[in-house]
Amino acid sequence: MSAVSAPDKEPAGARMYALIERLYPICRSITGPGVVETLEIIRQEIPVKIHRIASGTEIFDWTVPQEWSIRDAYVKDEKGNRVIDFKASNLHVVNYSRPIRATLPLAALKPRLHTDPAHPAWIPYRTSYYKEDWGFCLSQNALEAMSEGSYEVLIDSTLSDGELLWGECFIPGTTTDEIIISTHICHPSLANDNLSGIAVCVELAKLLMAAKRRRYSVRMLFIPGTIGSIAWLSMNRERLSRIRHGLVAVNLGDPGMMHYKKSRHETAEIDRVVEHVLKAAGQAHSIMAFSPYGYDERQFSSPGINLPFGCLSRTPYGRFAEYHTSADNLDFVKPEALAHSLETYACVLDTLDRNRAFLNLSPMCEPQLGKRGLYDAVGGKSDTKTRQLALLWVLNYSDGKHDLLDIAVKSGLAFDLIADAADLLLGQDLLAPAQRD
Amino acid sequence: MSAVSAPDKEPAGARMYALIERLYPICRSITGPGVVETLEIIRQEIPVKIHRIASGTEIFDWTVPQEWSIRDAYVKDEKGNRVIDFKASNLHVVNYSRPIRATLPLAALKPRLHTDPAHPAWIPYRTSYYKEDWGFCLSQNALEAMSEGSYEVLIDSTLSDGELLWGECFIPGTTTDEIIISTHICHPSLANDNLSGIAVCVELAKLLMAAKRRRYSVRMLFIPGTIGSIAWLSMNRERLSRIRHGLVAVNLGDPGMMHYKKSRHETAEIDRVVEHVLKAAGQAHSIMAFSPYGYDERQFSSPGINLPFGCLSRTPYGRFAEYHTSADNLDFVKPEALAHSLETYACVLDTLDRNRAFLNLSPMCEPQLGKRGLYDAVGGKSDTKTRQLALLWVLNYSDGKHDLLDIAVKSGLAFDLIADAADLLLGQDLLAPAQRD
Amino acid sequence: MSAVSAPDKEPAGARMYALIERLYPICRSITGPGVVETLEIIRQEIPVKIHRIASGTEIFDWTVPQEWSIRDAYVKDEKGNRVIDFKASNLHVVNYSRPIRATLPLAALKPRLHTDPAHPAWIPYRTSYYKEDWGFCLSQNALEAMSEGSYEVLIDSTLSDGELLWGECFIPGTTTDEIIISTHICHPSLANDNLSGIAVCVELAKLLMAAKRRRYSVRMLFIPGTIGSIAWLSMNRERLSRIRHGLVAVNLGDPGMMHYKKSRHETAEIDRVVEHVLKAAGQAHSIMAFSPYGYDERQFSSPGINLPFGCLSRTPYGRFAEYHTSADNLDFVKPEALAHSLETYACVLDTLDRNRAFLNLSPMCEPQLGKRGLYDAVGGKSDTKTRQLALLWVLNYSDGKHDLLDIAVKSGLAFDLIADAADLLLGQDLLAPAQRD
Repeated sequence: MSAVSAPDKEPAGARMYALIERLYPICRSITGPGVVETLEIIRQEIPVKIHRIASGTEIFDWTVPQEWSIRDAYVKDEKGNRVIDFKASNLHVVNYSRPIRATLPLAALKPRLHTDPAHPAWIPYRTSYYKEDWGFCLSQNALEAMSEGSYEVLIDSTLSDGELLWGECFIPGTTTDEIIISTHICHPSLANDNLSGIAVCVELAKLLMAAKRRRYSVRMLFIPGTIGSIAWLSMNRERLSRIRHGLVAVNLGDPGMMHYKKSRHETAEIDRVVEHVLKAAGQAHSIMAFSPYGYDERQFSSPGINLPFGCLSRTPYGRFAEYHTSADNLDFVKPEALAHSLETYACVLDTLDRNRAFLNLSPMCEPQLGKRGLYDAVGGKSDTKTRQLALLWVLNYSDGKHDLLDIAVKSGLAFDLIADAADLLLGQDLLAPAQRD
Repeated sequence: MSAVSAPDKEPAGARMYALIERLYPICRSITGPGVVETLEIIRQEIPVKIHRIASGTEIFDWTVPQEWSIRDAYVKDEKGNRVIDFKASNLHVVNYSRPIRATLPLAALKPRLHTDPAHPAWIPYRTSYYKEDWGFCLSQNALEAMSEGSYEVLIDSTLSDGELLWGECFIPGTTTDEIIISTHICHPSLANDNLSGIAVCVELAKLLMAAKRRRYSVRMLFIPGTIGSIAWLSMNRERLSRIRHGLVAVNLGDPGMMHYKKSRHETAEIDRVVEHVLKAAGQAHSIMAFSPYGYDERQFSSPGINLPFGCLSRTPYGRFAEYHTSADNLDFVKPEALAHSLETYACVLDTLDRNRAFLNLSPMCEPQLGKRGLYDAVGGKSDTKTRQLALLWVLNYSDGKHDLLDIAVKSGLAFDLIADAADLLLGQDLLAPAQRD
Repeated sequence: MSAVSAPDKEPAGARMYALIERLYPICRSITGPGVVETLEIIRQEIPVKIHRIASGTEIFDWTVPQEWSIRDAYVKDEKGNRVIDFKASNLHVVNYSRPIRATLPLAALKPRLHTDPAHPAWIPYRTSYYKEDWGFCLSQNALEAMSEGSYEVLIDSTLSDGELLWGECFIPGTTTDEIIISTHICHPSLANDNLSGIAVCVELAKLLMAAKRRRYSVRMLFIPGTIGSIAWLSMNRERLSRIRHGLVAVNLGDPGMMHYKKSRHETAEIDRVVEHVLKAAGQAHSIMAFSPYGYDERQFSSPGINLPFGCLSRTPYGRFAEYHTSADNLDFVKPEALAHSLETYACVLDTLDRNRAFLNLSPMCEPQLGKRGLYDAVGGKSDTKTRQLALLWVLNYSDGKHDLLDIAVKSGLAFDLIADAADLLLGQDLLAPAQRD
């Protein structure tokens, strides 16, 4: 009686990987044609409504920036060879660079060239969103191969008033209580830190749309990092009170284990649910305290917003060597890892949906289960039957203060067993939902 | 200055064992002549008022069942030998079996025959209270000795409207605040799981009646399991608000260590007191979380009743191999174990009675103990005297929020030392009882 | 941007040791000329106001005792030799002894002679404040050297109506919120248990007077133990509500590690601050639970007063062999230990002063730090910069519920880094003080 079914992992993994392959070449940024193209491709998979906000609009303490588009960029040596070439990798240009056309000696160019000496073959990823600037990224090896002399530099980009875009996929449940799942869409050719989140969200949306009897409405946000969530929050203030739970979905394709960064609330229902799901899965995982750093949970958890948002990822930002480099590529993400991430998200959403607090409608002593066919009538031989134990646990703790997850934890019984027992008791009018549901 | 004296263990152990020997042969059930006879024997030891409730009476979600009486039962082989004989052991009949007289081939009889293959020489104990049925219990060895052929089956029992009985022994204290101690009286020839609880309660009642200056009234319930406590609760709703603490007294004669299953409240005073008494005794013991399963704490702890009831036993139900078999017999229970259980209960009741919260009536700085003769007047040499430390601990924490047990735990001093210090300070008008007492 | 500077340890240690040398010979008691002389010497170092209260005055449950003065005391043998001589050590007389002149055989004298057999060369320290009595203290060796015979005994003391004195050094801050630091001045020639506290408080007062921008007013009490703090509390009832934190300063010159005995509140701000300072210092130390015994924290923590007073010492009372003996002398205390104690106190007072709760004035999402010059504008390369992390931690948790110390502990960042971040954000009008400040 699940609310959300588990995915069929192999085909789902293949579909997610294929979507990543398709999105990988696009040069995304926080604004501009890369975002537009990305949202169009997502829209071919699931229903996504695209929202726009004009450059210059005030959003809380911030201003919507200009749109950035880029056609070409290179550094040519004196022989006319492109020693750095945007067309080879969009990571070569500092993202959001202003246009430049110049000829410079190497010494003058060098301060504009970013490398990662610890990984001499990789191109690092750099941005300069909120300070007008320009620069190139290249491998340390490539830098060392550059001889003295003069270089022709071109960045054929435009920064002009336009729009900031994001996409929303809204999947209604039977109530207006919402779960937000947010993933960022602003990184160029980075596979894990960006595209894995998009792919898992797309596939998860399909699972949710196929599900029946879900209570929660789910809103998936495909947004540019930081500025996108600030824009969304600023445009949706009246909606915030509907949000019950939130997850930031990132880094879901790498081979590492699952990590959960708890919400600022520390013991919110989303925290309890994710921790339980990860623990019940019986695999290595890590639970981390909240910190006001990382992905968009920073904005959703700012003290004036303070929504219960966790971040459920595989390896967290900055903890894998490939992070923010050209090595976060199509080899780094794996269909099996994507499928496992999807399965975990599906289980979290199923558990959230089934987890409720009930009131025992026959609270004075135990109700007689035998006369309702809920109890093995021959005493003495059935003490260990967990199905019957689950009924007793649900009845005893359905006092409006304990939800089913509390009862599962207290009893040591599986959540689904407890939730099934609650379904059975509901069917016998021995329970009623507590609180607002 | 104890409220309840410690028992003289050797004669008390002998008396309890003798009572068990006397009660052992009786075929008890949740109703019927076995219960009547048992209560009559208890009444020869301590004042017990017998309460009755008619079959068919609605008690919460339940109905008082019919009275069951049994005169004989057997399975005879073709030669007329009683291969299963109620007169040899009352466990041979599924308790509460309806009458039957039939001749059956072995194959047809077998589904009615219950054994315990793990212990082939023991007869298991089975009941069928709430579904009309019949059956026999026998050892696996006996079953295997039965040859093919036809068997004559008789259960000469009656199920008819009558009464459900229980006994109450009320020992008044100086207040109407009550402690309930409940033990079940519905099992046939089982020594530990049934009779040990009765024997300890009887002897404990004598100790309480001999005590002076007890605050709490104590009500001992000798009741059929489940249905008895449901009946009692349903008939005593107006009295529930007086109940401060409760214990279910079971399995008190086996050689295992003491176990305490905490109340649903988890940190009720009864929980803190029993845990402290067991710990202070310095012997191996076990503290277990509440679970909505076990003995009558299930009913007293149902969410609509929610009284602070723990279960203080030796080995808990189902954790000793002899549980619910013919091996739970007179050899399994020991006078020394009964005496140790009694001593533990006496200490718990003494501690409950002495444990109070006080208000320091001289709370601005320390009162001058020296001028009251409470302090060694030569400073410098008496720092380690625990008697004086106890006075200071009681004075400092008698703020109405800490009871004497809290103070004992905080200070690391023995509860009796702390309680004696409180008596001394009360005598000097430096304390007054806090709250309702 | 400290509120209280760290001391220059070597000269401060030398000054404190010199003060102890000067105070050591004086025969102090809870009243009398020794206290007067001691306060006069302190007054030569720092501004101290002397308060007086007449003998016989009722102070809570106590009465101000008579003034004690002593001119000479001895026990002479039959040859006229002073075998016990007050002039050799003021510990030889039981402190507060009434006058006596008598000639007694050794057997009659012996009950009046106190020794410490465990340390046969040391003179123990004994008092008899609240029971009129007399006696002598001497080494076990000296006692054993006394032959049978008759002894001339003189104690040339006076007990007469007079005054109880204490000194207060008040160092105003920008608010009327007060920190009390209390040290006792009633012990005669004992260097650690008495004079070390005086010396550290004197030097700390100088540091505080040199500091700028301190919020808290600090009141240092130089008072006779027990009766002095009772007198002070009884005379300052209307001032108690201003007291935010308190420390009892004792045993600050011995070679042992720092010990902190927590306040009765257990988790008061003073407890959190001292624990953090000791932990951050990275040296061995000990945190102890509150107990209603020890020094004047007993009175400040009585349930009717209940102020958050801890006791910050090196080795606690009774835990060093030299405690309350002639071996607690000028050799036992060390300038380096005094200087380390002073440094610890200065750090505690600095942390208390800087520790506040703030409100984030831009709480909807993160404020844009970049446009205020608070953030490295090139994304991707500065993730680990702790200065920027500190800004984010302070912004996120400045919700009025967390003070800077909470944030330091949560973030794992140094308190000063967090406090500096708060200063920076205050300067940008991104924070405002929460609550009463």
